[in-house]
Amino acid sequence: MSTVKLWTDEQVSSDPRVKAVFDDIRATRKSDFVNNFWRALANQPALLERTWSSIKEVMVAPGELDSLTKELIYIAVSTINSCSYCVHSHTAAARAKGLTDQQHAEFLAVVGMAAETNALVNALQVPVDPEFMVR
Amino acid sequence: MSTVKLWTDEQVSSDPRVKAVFDDIRATRKSDFVNNFWRALANQPALLERTWSSIKEVMVAPGELDSLTKELIYIAVSTINSCSYCVHSHTAAARAKGLTDQQHAEFLAVVGMAAETNALVNALQVPVDPEFMVR
Amino acid sequence: MSTVKLWTDEQVSSDPRVKAVFDDIRATRKSDFVNNFWRALANQPALLERTWSSIKEVMVAPGELDSLTKELIYIAVSTINSCSYCVHSHTAAARAKGLTDQQHAEFLAVVGMAAETNALVNALQVPVDPEFMVR
Amino acid sequence: MSTVKLWTDEQVSSDPRVKAVFDDIRATRKSDFVNNFWRALANQPALLERTWSSIKEVMVAPGELDSLTKELIYIAVSTINSCSYCVHSHTAAARAKGLTDQQHAEFLAVVGMAAETNALVNALQVPVDPEFMVR
Amino acid sequence: MSTVKLWTDEQVSSDPRVKAVFDDIRATRKSDFVNNFWRALANQPALLERTWSSIKEVMVAPGELDSLTKELIYIAVSTINSCSYCVHSHTAAARAKGLTDQQHAEFLAVVGMAAETNALVNALQVPVDPEFMVR
Amino acid sequence: MSTVKLWTDEQVSSDPRVKAVFDDIRATRKSDFVNNFWRALANQPALLERTWSSIKEVMVAPGELDSLTKELIYIAVSTINSCSYCVHSHTAAARAKGLTDQQHAEFLAVVGMAAETNALVNALQVPVDPEFMVR
Repeated sequence: MSTVKLWTDEQVSSDPRVKAVFDDIRATRKSDFVNNFWRALANQPALLERTWSSIKEVMVAPGELDSLTKELIYIAVSTINSCSYCVHSHTAAARAKGLTDQQHAEFLAVVGMAAETNALVNALQVPVDPEFMVR
Repeated sequence: MSTVKLWTDEQVSSDPRVKAVFDDIRATRKSDFVNNFWRALANQPALLERTWSSIKEVMVAPGELDSLTKELIYIAVSTINSCSYCVHSHTAAARAKGLTDQQHAEFLAVVGMAAETNALVNALQVPVDPEFMVR
Repeated sequence: MSTVKLWTDEQVSSDPRVKAVFDDIRATRKSDFVNNFWRALANQPALLERTWSSIKEVMVAPGELDSLTKELIYIAVSTINSCSYCVHSHTAAARAKGLTDQQHAEFLAVVGMAAETNALVNALQVPVDPEFMVR
Repeated sequence: MSTVKLWTDEQVSSDPRVKAVFDDIRATRKSDFVNNFWRALANQPALLERTWSSIKEVMVAPGELDSLTKELIYIAVSTINSCSYCVHSHTAAARAKGLTDQQHAEFLAVVGMAAETNALVNALQVPVDPEFMVR
Repeated sequence: MSTVKLWTDEQVSSDPRVKAVFDDIRATRKSDFVNNFWRALANQPALLERTWSSIKEVMVAPGELDSLTKELIYIAVSTINSCSYCVHSHTAAARAKGLTDQQHAEFLAVVGMAAETNALVNALQVPVDPEFMVR
Repeated sequence: MSTVKLWTDEQVSSDPRVKAVFDDIRATRKSDFVNNFWRALANQPALLERTWSSIKEVMVAPGELDSLTKELIYIAVSTINSCSYCVHSHTAAARAKGLTDQQHAEFLAVVGMAAETNALVNALQVPVDPEFMVR
């Protein structure tokens, strides 16, 4: 289905550079499961390393936005980009981080509302109010 | 600039149906300022009424997601939909609700990261792991 | 503003290949006005010729869909693609073909509704019902 | 496949709020078939109610745009938003409303042409002609 | 799966207009294999003819950009448009034209980076530097 | 215009972390000009550092794809994402790297063609040929 081969654990073990990233994913997530995204990226070790390093910095390291909020922002982007895989994986991640059905319902309502008003604004070509400009 | 005329306060006052919505916007937001989006929608009273009613239900009514989180989701959608007006207006709204520079920086990092991995996944056509499926 | 120069009528006159297309645009539309899109494409004569020839076949030649319906479909696509220029030019074209304010309002409502439900479906990852499949 | 469970008729029957919407969908459409979109939205009763109510107002209630034209606009939006489910369901709906093969062919030609010129305009960054501005 | 039927070779043979295009595809590509895109377009002979003629002019005819570079640009567009079929078919085409794993890796890195910075710019609404303007 | 302030050279000088990145941009590009994108990102030093470091690795470091090809891929992505700033800045960069008018014309033709066929495929929902699958 993918445009590149997905690396099995056996193939990962035979490449030290890829193995190091997979080991760190498993240690960071405290889980043996490594999803297909990383198995596809394994074909490009430099990209694999840079992507995982960025994901760790952006999504895992503590900050002022809590972890669930970050996942919701991620799903919102993935939804509008029509990335089926990303919606699936990050909705699963959000659930694992405690997303309730009610929160999911409110999230969906906001995403739908934003998409609707975006379309209205783009069709109406509304000019930005000076009040919204940063000086 | 817009594809329809933007209603002035004087024009709004002359149409009871439009005026009722503008009055409610002002009362709900406790501010006299009504932004251009509503002045453009005023040309379509039924759409104006339905849109404001939905926005009130989705964005204003209390729920399990806090108000700032909803704004961040809104900006994420608007960013990917390339809606310049919407990014401006909802970033201003988020700031008014207390968005800090550090939170904005983390939000930007998540949106950028999500857009990058969405593109990678779409180019790699990664198949959804069975683990992410809802039974 | 554009990434290429926009050809003036004088420059058009000096290039027979570009001039032939501009003459045909003017004759077909029965108007002396040629909009900036064609003045930008003039830098690429082969693309200019092919694009105008396709537009004439698709948008101008009579068919089973009337001319106004085609413009509405065009604006819908342009809205979702965030093409400000295209929304402006085709909304103007639709008005010239008789688009009423009420039709515009209904068009906006459909575009907004579709964008909203598209986002909901993409976030929910709804599987296609077998009933919708073409055998 | 979906990120939420799809409600069966039995589950729908056990929730009066959801059942009321499903009953109205069946009555309005004069058909017992309720497609997966509504079975996914059933997890969020408030969103289900608001979405169905809007769809009825926008797509079902009579207006100045005929029902088939609205479906074509809907498919155009869904195509550009890469919403596979929405393209399938609304193409089926359009066929049920009488879309001919020739109309479908012309629709496809317009959607393709619009997408092509949108891309050209976005790459050329063509400035909006003053003639297209609404005063 | 598709919204129209896919023409078999037998059906193609029975329609001279469609057969002529298929014969030319086979002759041009020096291969008997004709992929599903053309089998779907066969339902719209005029669109089929125009699309194949454009593809031949744009993608097959020699020019200043080499054939592999054109495929990479095509995949980049298809990735951002979330066109799964197009990503698959043009990645296969690029491989047939000699795309190496290392080139694919670099391509993916550029596409991901561009998508990320596009999102950042859209969220930041960065104004175009005068230095980038064409006079 | 932007949603954050754009840092002047004076402000940059007062922040060692930001200054280090700006110094490296100037040294790497052998030019004193630093464009607005970096002046906006300066508000988020960690994001600024990570983005510049990635851009250097992806766009500046030598590899198997030449520098102009990378710029064309970048513009293709930016065009479809409707990122006006990005189209402007990377078209300027491509010109600085030697993009000819003829190459630009061919690039535009490919981007337009890809966008058109993407839309056709998404509207037709063409199933992926087994021949395109990676085993």
